[in-house]
Amino acid sequence: EIRALVVGDRCVGKTSIIHSLTSEDPLDSLPTIHSPVKIPNDQCLENCSLTILDSYTENLPDSSQILEEELEKATVILLVYDITQPNSVRRLETLWLPYLSKHTNSPIVIIGNKLDLKSSSPDYSFDTVISLLHNHAEMFEVVIECSAKSLENLYDVFIHMQNAVLYPLSPLYD
Amino acid sequence: EIRALVVGDRCVGKTSIIHSLTSEDPLDSLPTIHSPVKIPNDQCLENCSLTILDSYTENLPDSSQILEEELEKATVILLVYDITQPNSVRRLETLWLPYLSKHTNSPIVIIGNKLDLKSSSPDYSFDTVISLLHNHAEMFEVVIECSAKSLENLYDVFIHMQNAVLYPLSPLYD
Ligand SMILES: Nc1nc2c(ncn2[C@@H]2O[C@H](COP(=O)(O)OP(=O)(O)OP(=O)(O)O)[C@@H](O)[C@H]2O)c(=O)[nH]1
Ligand SMILES: Nc1nc2c(ncn2[C@@H]2O[C@H](COP(=O)(O)OP(=O)(O)OP(=O)(O)O)[C@@H](O)[C@H]2O)c(=O)[nH]1
Ligand SMILES: [Mg+2]
Ligand SMILES: [Mg+2]
Repeated sequence: EIRALVVGDRCVGKTSIIHSLTSEDPLDSLPTIHSPVKIPNDQCLENCSLTILDSYTENLPDSSQILEEELEKATVILLVYDITQPNSVRRLETLWLPYLSKHTNSPIVIIGNKLDLKSSSPDYSFDTVISLLHNHAEMFEVVIECSAKSLENLYDVFIHMQNAVLYPLSPLYD
Repeated sequence: EIRALVVGDRCVGKTSIIHSLTSEDPLDSLPTIHSPVKIPNDQCLENCSLTILDSYTENLPDSSQILEEELEKATVILLVYDITQPNSVRRLETLWLPYLSKHTNSPIVIIGNKLDLKSSSPDYSFDTVISLLHNHAEMFEVVIECSAKSLENLYDVFIHMQNAVLYPLSPLYD
């Protein structure tokens, strides 16, 4: 009954996050789009049924009809940025949150990926992301940093995508 | 008269390298494929004419007919890996060099991109790449590390892609 859709800029690690949530293999030559993944109910909170879906967007906000159809069906959105790409942080606010709010009322979990590369990104700080998103706080549930490579915080991602649906913070619209 | 084709795994920075060779703008939301770039003759070595072409490969070595056609026309190949992705280093030897040697006789310049992220990749070393490629030394001209983001060594990339054609190290086959 939970349908999680992973969205975000190119190359931020959408496919890798799905891969690492569901496999112990390293991130070796993954395809662009991961096939839909069904997590066994007994591994989910409250025995819920959880399906995780990948996406790909060449030129958002143009030509994204497939994405819009998937957004309508999703019950939670995982919006991924890359902590090593300042532009992917900026586009949360300038592009992704406004775009998503137009196409879904489902809760949004923001995920900062590639945390293993943090020490090379001196200009990146979690606090800066939080202040940048401060004016849009009603638009998402939570921001989590993780690494699909080192697996750091990945279990938190797994829990939060379920929490966002089972125990939402924001009021539910219709 | 020089036709440089940029190839390599997904997300290694092929498009960014072309962008940064030819523009001073930051790496903001680039397309998957850069349009072909013609460098003015008076900026090139020996007044040569230099065109740089981008490529994209979803599932090499399968379904790569477009790539194979471009490889036939190219006079130099820029084979890019990502220094933060050990897998992209391994695939130079296991996949890319054997594949390229089947489809072209043109000189190959190997480029290790994202050098700005080096301090977060303690397992990466240039010497390891060189030893890994030692047995294939006849298959390429040179290995250069650079960053499409910080622009470090990018001018070397520009010079070496021309040198590889104008003053080739390896014998020329027909
Ligand atoms: N260091 C590091 N690299 C990562 C991480 N997650 C993904 N990558 C790498 O980032 C690149 C892109 O990963 P993908 O999972 O294909 O990203 P994507 O968002 O699905 O990309 P597209 O489908 O092309 O938009 C690959 O080289 C991955 O190995 C991470 O947590 N740490
Ligand atoms: N830190 C850093 N990031 C880079 C560098 N070069 C590219 N990137 C980032 O890496 C990601 C992929 O870059 P692209 O240039 O689109 O890579 P590509 O090889 O053309 O990718 P595909 O066309 O999808 O195969 C983007 O987020 C770029 O901003 C670099 O030198 N340093
Ligand atoms: Mg993907
Ligand atoms: Mg590209």
